[in-house]
Amino acid sequence: MEVRTIWWEDGVVYLVDQNRLPRELSFKVCRSVEEVAQAIRDMTVRGAPAIGVAAAMGLALAAYHSPPSEVRRRVEEAAKLLLSTRPTARNLLWAVERVLAALNSLGADEEVRDRVVEEALKMAEEDVRVNEAIGRVGVELLKDGDVVLTHCNAGSLATVRYGTALAPVREAVKRGMRVSVIATETRPKLQGARLTAFELKVEGIKVKVITDGMVGYVMREGLVDKVLVGADRVLNDGTVVNKVGTLTIAIVADFFKIPFYVAAPTSTFDLQTGPDEVFIEHRGREEVAYVAGQPILPSGVEVLNPSFDVTPPSLVSGYITERGILSPPFNL
Amino acid sequence: MEVRTIWWEDGVVYLVDQNRLPRELSFKVCRSVEEVAQAIRDMTVRGAPAIGVAAAMGLALAAYHSPPSEVRRRVEEAAKLLLSTRPTARNLLWAVERVLAALNSLGADEEVRDRVVEEALKMAEEDVRVNEAIGRVGVELLKDGDVVLTHCNAGSLATVRYGTALAPVREAVKRGMRVSVIATETRPKLQGARLTAFELKVEGIKVKVITDGMVGYVMREGLVDKVLVGADRVLNDGTVVNKVGTLTIAIVADFFKIPFYVAAPTSTFDLQTGPDEVFIEHRGREEVAYVAGQPILPSGVEVLNPSFDVTPPSLVSGYITERGILSPPFNL
Repeated sequence: MEVRTIWWEDGVVYLVDQNRLPRELSFKVCRSVEEVAQAIRDMTVRGAPAIGVAAAMGLALAAYHSPPSEVRRRVEEAAKLLLSTRPTARNLLWAVERVLAALNSLGADEEVRDRVVEEALKMAEEDVRVNEAIGRVGVELLKDGDVVLTHCNAGSLATVRYGTALAPVREAVKRGMRVSVIATETRPKLQGARLTAFELKVEGIKVKVITDGMVGYVMREGLVDKVLVGADRVLNDGTVVNKVGTLTIAIVADFFKIPFYVAAPTSTFDLQTGPDEVFIEHRGREEVAYVAGQPILPSGVEVLNPSFDVTPPSLVSGYITERGILSPPFNL
Repeated sequence: MEVRTIWWEDGVVYLVDQNRLPRELSFKVCRSVEEVAQAIRDMTVRGAPAIGVAAAMGLALAAYHSPPSEVRRRVEEAAKLLLSTRPTARNLLWAVERVLAALNSLGADEEVRDRVVEEALKMAEEDVRVNEAIGRVGVELLKDGDVVLTHCNAGSLATVRYGTALAPVREAVKRGMRVSVIATETRPKLQGARLTAFELKVEGIKVKVITDGMVGYVMREGLVDKVLVGADRVLNDGTVVNKVGTLTIAIVADFFKIPFYVAAPTSTFDLQTGPDEVFIEHRGREEVAYVAGQPILPSGVEVLNPSFDVTPPSLVSGYITERGILSPPFNL
């Protein structure tokens, strides 16, 4: 049985509701671009590649349900709405630009509608192929018995299927290698505990969860052979923007001389923006102040809640992409 | 109003129930050493200096409620029970040994009872004086406007009163300096979010809470001037055993060249044990798998839950004690 994170069926988009995992595997049904935008904003769907495909599907919904004469205008409005949802994941912009480019190469409105839907579906398929390629490239870095530490969720649930950072692990297990995972729980939203642990357990891949502060402990104890993380944006100089906590892990891995790899499709690469120009999204206090609906902080105490951090290229051992292991500057 | 974490009243020991903070400020009433031992085990009372004084009070309870002829035996049994509760905090052993030494210098049983109680009360008073001295020593390292990052809770609640790592911050604020705190939430037990944020807010000292993974982010952004943490055990070569997450923070502080200080009374120093001989307590799965009673992990997924980690002396800028700022090897 192949479960996908995102799929299209007759003008309806289905998203695995990631806020409800692991308690409940349920689906958010989106019939409009507004519903998709809301699902991206509230992290029903998250993970840079999944956000990209969800956005393309949002444009497809806008086109599909539009009167023929208004398709182009509706898609352009939908693009604006989607780009306003979350600012950091590169794949969102990439996906929207790709659909708009496909649209701009065409004429009549009827044709536009089909073309937009077709492009979105093609991008979903491509995402799976690209992730499988990342798996085949990345598995060459692993050896039998390796324990891979990963952060947040860069697995199936962060993509349409198969994942980025977890793709080499899946490929290794498929090849009969004994590879296991240590997953950081990844506060505040606990994607490691809720999502990475869930999807690995479902597939029978060995996983242990640690709190984010335990990274130093497990590395000092020699329990980690490699670090594999995903990315929300990779810059031309190799700077990596990823889930907050990534920088901390990269520094500790460097201290203990443990290889630190970033796995991402080339659609995550942003060759224009400089490391000091990256916009880091800050999210609400409630994500830090509450866990599973329960308050953990005294009322009125302030928090910081940056969603991402910025890891310099000096801490990255290699960039695993569908085109091979790359080094900056990237010639894409 | 002076609130203490631990106090003695007519043969009863009162402990602030730290598992219920910040929802509720309540007290655990202990009438026997068994109740004190349970309170140490379940972290009703925690923090190395507070554990030490609680243990001394536990011995005092055993003595106080003993028939005159059995005091010595009861105290010795109580000592064994208390030493079995939590293995890492040095102050537990220190306190028990100190009370037993006081007892061994005496004769008749009646006298022993009074002497044990007297010694426990003296240790509680001394703890406050020692922490105030740590504050006066440590404040010399701070300057106006400093933001201090701290981990876990090494504040009033980790001691009888005033704290270790937070003592210099309190002293600075008392002197009119503008010093504020960034507190890591400190999973799994959230002592930073629940306890440090609580006690600082009560006193009007500015505090912001971050998740443990955000340490790299705040340091890269230049938001942290100094790190001050407590210790559960300091070894003769300067190795620091402290709440898990400390090593991670020390490595990141070193990377960003931010001074990293350890504040602890000399009763936390263990000049006999080597860095590879330290026993690290591992606690139950439920601490990681549940937050505020809510499950956050898929059922059956394993966790690691070391309570402490080990920070090498090369990452420590200085040891703030009641006797001044010390450097290893220590001549105590």
